[in-house]
Amino acid sequence: MRLATLNNGTRDGRLIVVSPDGAHYAPAPVETMQAALEDWDHAAPLLAAITDFPESLDLDQLLAPLPRAWQWLDGSVYPSHGALMDKVLGVEPEKPDAPLMYQGVSDTFHAPRAEVPMADEALGIDFEGEFGIITKAVPMGTSAAKAGDYIALIVQINDWSLRKLAGPEMKTGFGWIQAKPPCGMAPFAVTPDELGEYWRNSRPALHLNVQWNGAQFGHAHGEPMAYGFDDLVAHGARTRHLVAGTVIGSGTVSNENFREVGSSCIAERRGIEIVDTGAPRTEFMTYGDSVRMEAQLPDGRAPFGVLEQKVVRA
Amino acid sequence: MRLATLNNGTRDGRLIVVSPDGAHYAPAPVETMQAALEDWDHAAPLLAAITDFPESLDLDQLLAPLPRAWQWLDGSVYPSHGALMDKVLGVEPEKPDAPLMYQGVSDTFHAPRAEVPMADEALGIDFEGEFGIITKAVPMGTSAAKAGDYIALIVQINDWSLRKLAGPEMKTGFGWIQAKPPCGMAPFAVTPDELGEYWRNSRPALHLNVQWNGAQFGHAHGEPMAYGFDDLVAHGARTRHLVAGTVIGSGTVSNENFREVGSSCIAERRGIEIVDTGAPRTEFMTYGDSVRMEAQLPDGRAPFGVLEQKVVRA
Repeated sequence: MRLATLNNGTRDGRLIVVSPDGAHYAPAPVETMQAALEDWDHAAPLLAAITDFPESLDLDQLLAPLPRAWQWLDGSVYPSHGALMDKVLGVEPEKPDAPLMYQGVSDTFHAPRAEVPMADEALGIDFEGEFGIITKAVPMGTSAAKAGDYIALIVQINDWSLRKLAGPEMKTGFGWIQAKPPCGMAPFAVTPDELGEYWRNSRPALHLNVQWNGAQFGHAHGEPMAYGFDDLVAHGARTRHLVAGTVIGSGTVSNENFREVGSSCIAERRGIEIVDTGAPRTEFMTYGDSVRMEAQLPDGRAPFGVLEQKVVRA
Repeated sequence: MRLATLNNGTRDGRLIVVSPDGAHYAPAPVETMQAALEDWDHAAPLLAAITDFPESLDLDQLLAPLPRAWQWLDGSVYPSHGALMDKVLGVEPEKPDAPLMYQGVSDTFHAPRAEVPMADEALGIDFEGEFGIITKAVPMGTSAAKAGDYIALIVQINDWSLRKLAGPEMKTGFGWIQAKPPCGMAPFAVTPDELGEYWRNSRPALHLNVQWNGAQFGHAHGEPMAYGFDDLVAHGARTRHLVAGTVIGSGTVSNENFREVGSSCIAERRGIEIVDTGAPRTEFMTYGDSVRMEAQLPDGRAPFGVLEQKVVRA
């Protein structure tokens, strides 16, 4: 099952069920994604039972599948990315035997085709291609072994970042506020069964194709997460309940062979350049730049659709 | 004007306007606090015009004035506290020329008289007495000079903390997830005029009286913030808009003469003990412990009412 949210002029939009070919939809029997998530065990079968998709889908009319969330917890669980980023930021943080995770702004997830306003071109504007999940309500203290049961949907995320602010904020120990403006989401949120065998061990085994201004940038594979999304849910829920509709991210998708497969963010490419040549050659984004992200199954299908966002002056 | 939220069985409760004596109320012409904040310039005069308070107020029926928020940004702007906490946590973070701020869980603010469930007594359960503000919608890039105009309400907050987890999480650079379960709020949110001359330079010039299990613990003064709430709003809004109903905290209220006035959290008292004697003597909270927090004006009035919360086993 694939779900999306239509822009109907309200802040939460209108939940729709998308046809297998991605070109048509049916209005859902539940008004919003948040409402569906709050009653997921009841709502999901109703949504999944829909087989008639009478309306034509206009991708430009879509909001993020969940346009705002009560909580956004972003991990960083691709080891090849973490090690490089520490070098780029000039930090040597301690690595606990637990997933890295911060809480980010969640009152806005930009639409798949949004123009994204940025405060200042000089701040090192960067994209970050990620996978994410959206939870049902998770009780405090849920174990990793049980956490997978609370994963309602899988999403594809663009975690916009301002790199010039990231290092200084990280060094305070308080995490990121200014370095992390709102993220974007790809058009469709999918249930795990939609990925079939490519959702395994609570990890998405898909390539994430990333293009920057039309040029190929990366196609890293989603599977080599050091911690699965079940671990991330359990980590987030250790001392708090997770409200229904909590979004949890993987951090930038990255593979050990990034010199071959490329990267899912500019900072990682710059990190490789620093390691290889002593200095970065690639600059960050400027106003008017666009990024395109599309996770693909081996047969070429793109379960989350295409995210294509453009940076504009605020 | 003082506002509160009555428990009516819904997640957002029912907004009420509280009488000057704090014993009566009138239902507000706007259903919820969040709705009022989203239309504040229109709603506030309607609320302020209410002078007839027909209902008796039962404090046990109150939720937090804003029971859930789209965003909670907590600062740490009392220098005497920050220096001590770094010693306690064993960290030496860089101190930028900007307020320290992290984003915390905002989908739950516990009621003023809540029993607060904690995952594990061994995690160093602590209270933190703070002041906070709630904003109207703040445009990205708003300057500190203009930021004060977006402060709708002032609140009193108990920022529950799990100290054994705080140091390790801080050292990752990602900020706190597990160390910061949901906060609580005192009964009443007040407009700045309610504090009169004791709201100055965007700082609350009140003492915060804190008692732990009935014993006096601290009565630090709110004014010596290194940054005012106007600065905190501007810091938060530098690269993102702030949604209406964003809650921003001061961090633990602390004064340089903490040996005389006491502290607003246990960790600070332990820090003093470490500095003075080489080791902490005061233990953290155990199940059944309670904390009482009441900010007082010189004439004895408590504009935010009394927060009194009890720690219980989750």
